[in-house]
Amino acid sequence: MAKCISSSILFAPSSSSTRTLKPSPLQFQTPKRSLRSMLSPRPRNPFSVFIRATVAIEKETPENERPDTFLRATDDPHSSTAASPNSVRARFEKMIREAQDEVCAAIEAEDGVGKFTEDVWSRAGGGGGISRVLQEGGVWEKAGVNVSVVYGMMPPEAYRAAKGGDSLEKPGPVPFFAAGISSVLHPKNPFAPTLHFNYRYFETDAPKDAPGAPRQWWFGGGTDLTPAYIFEEDVKHFHQVQKQACEKFDPSFYPRFKKWCDDYFLIKHRGERRGLGGIFFDDLNDYDQEMLLAFATECAQSVVPAYIPIINRRKETPFTDQHKAWQQLRRGRYVEFNLVYDRGTTFGLKTGGRIESILVSLPLTARWEYDHEPEKGSEEWKLLDACINPKNWI
Amino acid sequence: MAKCISSSILFAPSSSSTRTLKPSPLQFQTPKRSLRSMLSPRPRNPFSVFIRATVAIEKETPENERPDTFLRATDDPHSSTAASPNSVRARFEKMIREAQDEVCAAIEAEDGVGKFTEDVWSRAGGGGGISRVLQEGGVWEKAGVNVSVVYGMMPPEAYRAAKGGDSLEKPGPVPFFAAGISSVLHPKNPFAPTLHFNYRYFETDAPKDAPGAPRQWWFGGGTDLTPAYIFEEDVKHFHQVQKQACEKFDPSFYPRFKKWCDDYFLIKHRGERRGLGGIFFDDLNDYDQEMLLAFATECAQSVVPAYIPIINRRKETPFTDQHKAWQQLRRGRYVEFNLVYDRGTTFGLKTGGRIESILVSLPLTARWEYDHEPEKGSEEWKLLDACINPKNWI
Repeated sequence: MAKCISSSILFAPSSSSTRTLKPSPLQFQTPKRSLRSMLSPRPRNPFSVFIRATVAIEKETPENERPDTFLRATDDPHSSTAASPNSVRARFEKMIREAQDEVCAAIEAEDGVGKFTEDVWSRAGGGGGISRVLQEGGVWEKAGVNVSVVYGMMPPEAYRAAKGGDSLEKPGPVPFFAAGISSVLHPKNPFAPTLHFNYRYFETDAPKDAPGAPRQWWFGGGTDLTPAYIFEEDVKHFHQVQKQACEKFDPSFYPRFKKWCDDYFLIKHRGERRGLGGIFFDDLNDYDQEMLLAFATECAQSVVPAYIPIINRRKETPFTDQHKAWQQLRRGRYVEFNLVYDRGTTFGLKTGGRIESILVSLPLTARWEYDHEPEKGSEEWKLLDACINPKNWI
Repeated sequence: MAKCISSSILFAPSSSSTRTLKPSPLQFQTPKRSLRSMLSPRPRNPFSVFIRATVAIEKETPENERPDTFLRATDDPHSSTAASPNSVRARFEKMIREAQDEVCAAIEAEDGVGKFTEDVWSRAGGGGGISRVLQEGGVWEKAGVNVSVVYGMMPPEAYRAAKGGDSLEKPGPVPFFAAGISSVLHPKNPFAPTLHFNYRYFETDAPKDAPGAPRQWWFGGGTDLTPAYIFEEDVKHFHQVQKQACEKFDPSFYPRFKKWCDDYFLIKHRGERRGLGGIFFDDLNDYDQEMLLAFATECAQSVVPAYIPIINRRKETPFTDQHKAWQQLRRGRYVEFNLVYDRGTTFGLKTGGRIESILVSLPLTARWEYDHEPEKGSEEWKLLDACINPKNWI
């Protein structure tokens, strides 16, 4: 029974058995990049807001089967919706769907008990998605791995805004394409870390009446680790895998994206990060497109080797109630970051996104103790110190 | 060891044993009313933003003893900082401090195990507060009851904005006064409801160089109930006590403030309220001042008779893991409301308020299940339905 909804590239949804009780979700969840464009004084990608607005007015349809592709055969092989297998969009979709399969298979194998439930959905305007959630498994308490591929037309004002105000002619609607994979994995054992990753690709075509105008594209994404306790071996391994993925492409990537990650995941009101970072980048288009596609692919393929060996080492480590309580306090911080700062979450909540899809990133359980301060020098203190003062792990 | 901080009329703080780890709280928490004034297109009380801004730059000092009053003896008996015992400000302070004592005593008596810890603090610029928190008691998992009384000077721009732009003369700084009591009480038993209440009073003097200008004042506050399960007897009793308090003063109060409460505590992204309401009002100054002081006093004095009999009936009711899990899901909603919508919380977080003071309103523990939907007709469904479709309980 895959009756499902949401166009989110973050997370997508499942069945709703009490529709009469809740107001129907009339709008799509809007993916992560849009708020940045709204908040940034000089958005690098002003299209994204309009893409979200366009996507938001259309309702999703549950599907019983996964299509081979969410792209569509058209007469125009250069259209951003065409299924031409060599296009970046087609290869990006193939990549994120393979990554979804690979990560879910690795999670199920490591978990041993839990199975992902799947929801498939489509949009009349174009595209769709596959949402998978595993809840209360043997190793993970909550794991979501979602892909979406959406496209359509965006208003001409968006294109004009992006091109600058020097043109008097009015272009027609501009075709856009947006695809992504997004995942949050919360284990049960307090010594096993939470992982988040998200890789996304945006494209705009030339307006219909200006076929010679340049196509535009952007990549974004990242992978970051959120443990409750530091095992240096684990954190070094995680960052080493990120660094190796980066260094296959550009020596500046790891230091730059590591810092970007530390900056992005800051819980400002606490002056601490939610975890120990990794890599994060957004609105990237100033490199070769093929290179960035290969880079995003490498990053997504690095998720399993970066994460699963850590879980395998820690999933059965004995722990006390105190260890669990500290993990729960850190889960509280995760909630604070996601509800107060995360661009995709806050924008999604305020624009009528599908809530369960957006909030599947929240942990199953969390805790807030008044004025809790770990004892100086304790293992809990060391974690907090590393969240306040980001370290170079390698 | 009462070394304490924060000027919040919402919650105030306790000791900080690992200051070296965390960035010191350099600013005061800013009380609730300010954000409303910022968001509202025609703020009724434009002073409040400036009051917050003024308060926010001053650091708090821990005190070892509670003063008899936070007001100050001055040569000018009409000054808003003067301790003249018949002034509204002095009587309001007396009222909230008596209410704090009364509520804390009733909570401790009903809890049987837990004791409040107290932190007293002062501000060099004027005023201070008393914060009390009980954590992991016999009946309550977290209970905070805080008062604060702060005053000082606000920038002349605030006064001019409030008076309108028709005056060319520049007034000097304007004295202000703000006092309040605020409390959130989260019990352990899933059949025992959470209670929140907050009563506050603001005053501005005439500018020093315009002694004839009118003094201004406003009242705000409310009491609301958040159960995980509906016992009609309990909800009716709670609303009946609110209605009785209201009807001693104005027949329009209960229906008007009941609706205001239902509107304010809406979790917009879910289309549901966080609980079953009560009363809420803000920026009230269009009634007789003495009448509103008596009304706020009546409301604060109604907290114990409205709430404690319910707790007494429910605190030992046997429950299952399923009942507890549902309570935890509803606590998750409480977190969502407070972090995403509550004006005091969101404004405090974004303006550098003391975090532990602001977030003591969060429950000790909370839970988020993906796409949880209670079975139609179940007790959980009935609660959710009443949060989606507010009812008239009496």
